[in-house]
Amino acid sequence: MRATLMYGAHDVRVEAVPDARLVEPTDALVRVTRACICGSDLWPYNSMAPSETGNRMGHEFIGFVEAVGSAVRTVKKGDLVVAPFAWSDGTCEFCQQGLQTSCLHGGWWGGTTLDGGQGEGVRIPQADGTLVVLPVGPDHALMPSLLTLSDVMGTGHHAALAAKVRPGHVAAVVGDGAVGLCGVIAARCLGAERVIMLGRHADRIALARSFGATDIVSDRGEAAIERVRELTGGLGAHSVLECVGHGESMRTAVSIARAGGAVGRVGVPQEATIPNAQPTFYANVTIAGGPAPVRAYIDQLLPDVLEGRIQPGRVFDRVTNIDGVPDGYRAMNEREAIKVMIAF
Amino acid sequence: MRATLMYGAHDVRVEAVPDARLVEPTDALVRVTRACICGSDLWPYNSMAPSETGNRMGHEFIGFVEAVGSAVRTVKKGDLVVAPFAWSDGTCEFCQQGLQTSCLHGGWWGGTTLDGGQGEGVRIPQADGTLVVLPVGPDHALMPSLLTLSDVMGTGHHAALAAKVRPGHVAAVVGDGAVGLCGVIAARCLGAERVIMLGRHADRIALARSFGATDIVSDRGEAAIERVRELTGGLGAHSVLECVGHGESMRTAVSIARAGGAVGRVGVPQEATIPNAQPTFYANVTIAGGPAPVRAYIDQLLPDVLEGRIQPGRVFDRVTNIDGVPDGYRAMNEREAIKVMIAF
Repeated sequence: MRATLMYGAHDVRVEAVPDARLVEPTDALVRVTRACICGSDLWPYNSMAPSETGNRMGHEFIGFVEAVGSAVRTVKKGDLVVAPFAWSDGTCEFCQQGLQTSCLHGGWWGGTTLDGGQGEGVRIPQADGTLVVLPVGPDHALMPSLLTLSDVMGTGHHAALAAKVRPGHVAAVVGDGAVGLCGVIAARCLGAERVIMLGRHADRIALARSFGATDIVSDRGEAAIERVRELTGGLGAHSVLECVGHGESMRTAVSIARAGGAVGRVGVPQEATIPNAQPTFYANVTIAGGPAPVRAYIDQLLPDVLEGRIQPGRVFDRVTNIDGVPDGYRAMNEREAIKVMIAF
Repeated sequence: MRATLMYGAHDVRVEAVPDARLVEPTDALVRVTRACICGSDLWPYNSMAPSETGNRMGHEFIGFVEAVGSAVRTVKKGDLVVAPFAWSDGTCEFCQQGLQTSCLHGGWWGGTTLDGGQGEGVRIPQADGTLVVLPVGPDHALMPSLLTLSDVMGTGHHAALAAKVRPGHVAAVVGDGAVGLCGVIAARCLGAERVIMLGRHADRIALARSFGATDIVSDRGEAAIERVRELTGGLGAHSVLECVGHGESMRTAVSIARAGGAVGRVGVPQEATIPNAQPTFYANVTIAGGPAPVRAYIDQLLPDVLEGRIQPGRVFDRVTNIDGVPDGYRAMNEREAIKVMIAF
């Protein structure tokens, strides 16, 4: 089969690899129909040290179950399924709490030992805990939105929950990538009265507005902080969704939260410390979040997608086949595309 | 009247100062009957740059109302009152939310412009919002416990709430000072099944045990982290109360929280950043807390004190008069005393 590998910064290749196959009785085998490139894939795209073996890439995908191990009970051959960006057993203490990203027997796609989603086939460990069957056909018009349930929509939702968005709140979203845009959707769904998007790209801002952003702040750094303060009567936002992970974006996020407010961080942190320990302390600002347990959120968000209440699939502004994946990385990295879908 | 001033590190003096007096119609004048020295007073005690004018000290006190301004409605001459460690109007957006430490018209005792609690009299700004009348006489046996409602008991309670202590949880308390000890009380009241105290002083450990600590960890740094992990099946504590504020104590606190857990920080941070941004992210650990809105908690905790369910006043292991205040600072700084009460 063919799959995407990253061999170093700016070095993404599509290559023939051994076919995915069942190994454990709890495995399923999935033939991928849709996948995508994630903003978080751009971190290694810009920084990965050269590797002889390469890393298999991709953690967001939909596909058909082709085979299941003898212990698998909840999915069967022929099911169309969506996979969360982390696999999990569904039974451990953390899974039972709905924190599947901390599953005691779970893990992450790709790397050097597992298949990634940006390939034709994927071995699914812990298939019963991991996969969710979709009640639609593979060419359904909602496929892009369903694909976002594997990561970005659930991640935006996690940011909004961690930032404690409540009806009537002022929410601010730092980052106009696909996650930030889904964060706008989530904040509105949770009742935010105002959603301030901090972003600079016209196409993304337009999409943010159509998702329900009420205010746009295109400044950066101190100017952005000042502008959000102006927009909020000097107080800041109740809820801040940090959807980037840069040091500067985190500094902005914690600086625009109002006293007693919360920052929900879902951007993978690129710095070793969280800034502004003292101002956030004096203001009783909560800092929460992390990798979203999207497995838990698929059940919650699937009806919203199927019934058309949310359209997160609009974050995809480019579609390619597997041969176009390397150029898809380039396009996302150069901000030519918001998010690239891969159709197999 | 006489009051305590700090002129620099290790330079605490009791001096004659102008009598406290009413200034605004919303003021009350309180004659202090009990006050105390706070662990947070030791930060400037060890670091304050020399000052010509000195800073008035003390933010925890009980006393009689001697006079009230024309606009004061809820307290009257002769009332015995307890003051929270921050004053607040009781009506602003933040006060209404129960976050009186962020009151838009509030502030902190002492310094160069206001009286401090470690003196004979205090002008109370925003008396209606700030003071709580105590339904007991000034020599009541519960006076030490009532005095802790001005800060340390409410602060321990805040740490436990911020750390999301729930029935059945494993809580860990970093810091065996008066706040940490009150944190043990609070964690047990909120239903923690186990409370792990991280501390090293025999007298404090004994008190922690009598307050309900079930496990003691006297190691530091990596060894302490390792020991807490051992005690919790490798997972860490659901709830961690950070009651010190040092860089090392915060590193310990965030390192012993389990995935999905929370750190409630109430120790004033001595470093500009929060450590371990990446591990806490991957584990979805929440970091919350700040100055406790003790004004909100007095109403909740007063019945527990009056009905004898909690005895936080046991943190006081030394009593002095105002002349003994400088030596009280020394004794607390040298860990000779846990917490010093001042009887006027």
